[in-house]
Amino acid sequence: MIRTHYSKDVKPSSGNVTLAGWAQNIRILGKIAFIKLRDREGLSQVTIPADNKNFETVKSITPESVLAVSGGVKASAQSQNGWELIPIKIEMLSKASVPLPIDFSGKINTSLDKRIDHRYLDVRNPKSLLIFKVLSATEIAMKEYCVEKGFMEINTPKFMASASETGAELFEVKYMNKKAYLAQSPQLYKQMAMASGFDKVFEQAPVFRANPSHTSRHDTEYTSFDVEIAFVDSSEDIMKFEEEWLAYVFKKVKEKYGAEIKEAFGFEIEVPKVPFPRMTMKEALKAVHGLEKADEFGEFDSDGEKKLGEYVKKKFKSDFVFLTEFPYDARSFYIMKKDEKTSFGYDLIYKGLEITSGGQREHHYETLVKQVKEKGLDPNSIKDYGEMFKYGVPPHGGFGLSPTRVVMQMLNLENVREATFLPRDTDRLTP
Amino acid sequence: MIRTHYSKDVKPSSGNVTLAGWAQNIRILGKIAFIKLRDREGLSQVTIPADNKNFETVKSITPESVLAVSGGVKASAQSQNGWELIPIKIEMLSKASVPLPIDFSGKINTSLDKRIDHRYLDVRNPKSLLIFKVLSATEIAMKEYCVEKGFMEINTPKFMASASETGAELFEVKYMNKKAYLAQSPQLYKQMAMASGFDKVFEQAPVFRANPSHTSRHDTEYTSFDVEIAFVDSSEDIMKFEEEWLAYVFKKVKEKYGAEIKEAFGFEIEVPKVPFPRMTMKEALKAVHGLEKADEFGEFDSDGEKKLGEYVKKKFKSDFVFLTEFPYDARSFYIMKKDEKTSFGYDLIYKGLEITSGGQREHHYETLVKQVKEKGLDPNSIKDYGEMFKYGVPPHGGFGLSPTRVVMQMLNLENVREATFLPRDTDRLTP
Repeated sequence: MIRTHYSKDVKPSSGNVTLAGWAQNIRILGKIAFIKLRDREGLSQVTIPADNKNFETVKSITPESVLAVSGGVKASAQSQNGWELIPIKIEMLSKASVPLPIDFSGKINTSLDKRIDHRYLDVRNPKSLLIFKVLSATEIAMKEYCVEKGFMEINTPKFMASASETGAELFEVKYMNKKAYLAQSPQLYKQMAMASGFDKVFEQAPVFRANPSHTSRHDTEYTSFDVEIAFVDSSEDIMKFEEEWLAYVFKKVKEKYGAEIKEAFGFEIEVPKVPFPRMTMKEALKAVHGLEKADEFGEFDSDGEKKLGEYVKKKFKSDFVFLTEFPYDARSFYIMKKDEKTSFGYDLIYKGLEITSGGQREHHYETLVKQVKEKGLDPNSIKDYGEMFKYGVPPHGGFGLSPTRVVMQMLNLENVREATFLPRDTDRLTP
Repeated sequence: MIRTHYSKDVKPSSGNVTLAGWAQNIRILGKIAFIKLRDREGLSQVTIPADNKNFETVKSITPESVLAVSGGVKASAQSQNGWELIPIKIEMLSKASVPLPIDFSGKINTSLDKRIDHRYLDVRNPKSLLIFKVLSATEIAMKEYCVEKGFMEINTPKFMASASETGAELFEVKYMNKKAYLAQSPQLYKQMAMASGFDKVFEQAPVFRANPSHTSRHDTEYTSFDVEIAFVDSSEDIMKFEEEWLAYVFKKVKEKYGAEIKEAFGFEIEVPKVPFPRMTMKEALKAVHGLEKADEFGEFDSDGEKKLGEYVKKKFKSDFVFLTEFPYDARSFYIMKKDEKTSFGYDLIYKGLEITSGGQREHHYETLVKQVKEKGLDPNSIKDYGEMFKYGVPPHGGFGLSPTRVVMQMLNLENVREATFLPRDTDRLTP
């Protein structure tokens, strides 16, 4: 490896080191030159006196060129780190052209679209990079907790022979001489894992939705974190798992990046208290919209979710709320009914945005076939799926969650694309 | 949760417990009945004397029905576990139809195709289930090691605007009013992460290859584990990382499932010694095929890989070998050249099967454009990708590896589909 240390691991006593990164800033004064060298973990100051044999080299360095700088570390009161690097050798690893196509320092306001066109430059801004560090830590902690609790990781196919829920939002693929569709969720497959006896599973993988809308919270593909648990008593078991899981994830993120987030974003990450408040959809609609009668039973739109978020924050001092007993009309055929109108489906709302859809599934063959028909689906289209319920499937449930939406809300970002490295939407297929 | 214990966690002193799982075997003798109850972690014996109020219930239980059995644990010399469960309550959670469509006990030889048609039954065989436990442990350990070493996890898009390497093996998608293609690998995006300053990244995600061939080692989609590392000195840094990573993974799998593998498969998992032997392609071709002249320079086919595996096992006592200095002709435009004919690309062969393709990438803009043209590609088709090299990209390299192929070889399976929960190939899009 070219580098011996990241910037943050250097101490005034480190002796000779090699740092490597991007020349964020080059200043040449009469008798001294300075380079601010940036790596993933921070900034270093390289100080080059006029009598240093590298002094001439500095003149050829363009901003954002990639350098390896070997030299001696010297304590320095003037440097922010308390040390500076006096180079023995400066190696130009990759010279950057001038000018850069976008400013990513944050001094000039660049549109999100243009920033994403040049994402590899955009995320060189440490605040943008921090979003992806937080997303990475979030996803890692999500898996860690599942592993600790004895879950198996599964990988399910993204090609499907037919539409599993409805034809809407489905991408079609030319598959040899056939047609295939891209999975909108691993739902049916993770249920198959339950029938298989995998017991508790998670999968983190892309899902695909041909969503034609332009909103700040939808992409045509995103990473979904899916969990499914067998032998649950009720959907309450799933919510209990989910809230403890999220509390763990927030705690881990705070431990690792709490200080950096405070500095860059100006607020403290709050680790949520468990249990999260729970409201039935009826209670929530009544509280937010004043709806009381059963025939007004409905769902929240995104404005409604926002109002609910405010209500919950005020009433329960919580950023999270489980919305339980979802109307069956608004849920898929595979969800378990509580009664004719309500289901054991739930949503999890975080700061007024849905981040999870979950619930207990129907595991009785006859009931399931009935529900498929009620939803106007062709029972043949889910034949393989339906068949398995004849041969012993435990009661089970689970949820799917979008880690990017969690991070969007955690960091109060305005658009989910801020937390998506290379987003895909109606208009965007590049870079 | 319905269950209080997995079978393996019960002790003769456990008192009252609830076990839940599948009725693998039901035997009713005159004055006593037995149920072998199977959960993910093993088998339990439920013993029901004729005077037990559940005795009648047992008659209605069909094989593979899902039960919850609550009762008292009693030490028993006759039972394999040293204890048996005397039920207070037997709850039928899901009754299985008779007969089952396949036998999965292993007593009757069922074709792999038919087994996969009924995969949710097939993997109820503990030996099949063990394959997926091992795959899960393998993938988890792969990520764990990367996290320990300070890697960031990334999620890259699977939709691309154009073919990135060649048009072969590419799936086309109807994308709104455009065409899109499914990513064959996250290659270009993980390199973009290098330009972005993410420094070291991994991604585990599906890749898609419209492979029309029917072999025992190819699917149209599979999970790829991809790693990319910046500031490498050479491809040797990447190989060094990879061999230590794999040694860690094998050690973890052996710790967790070594005993179960020994029992089910009859052999000990071998944790590989590092460093793995390295052979240049020239050396390897000469050793295996006796080729000496430069114009015979080529690649191994699958038979050649097998012979190489045998050679390496004999000569180096190793299951693994790095094949270095791959012919440039056989590599993509983005690989770094060593000279006109050879590249810094490598393969990793495990027991005579390629499990990894890796190497150092070209990070100089002009050289890269030259290589794109040499490969007969349209420079426009990789415009976004090429552009970034103008603005400072560190030397970097990485690899992609298929965890299912690793497990296939680790457990000496004959077909990669044995280790793929729900495979997709030319003929198969279900279940």
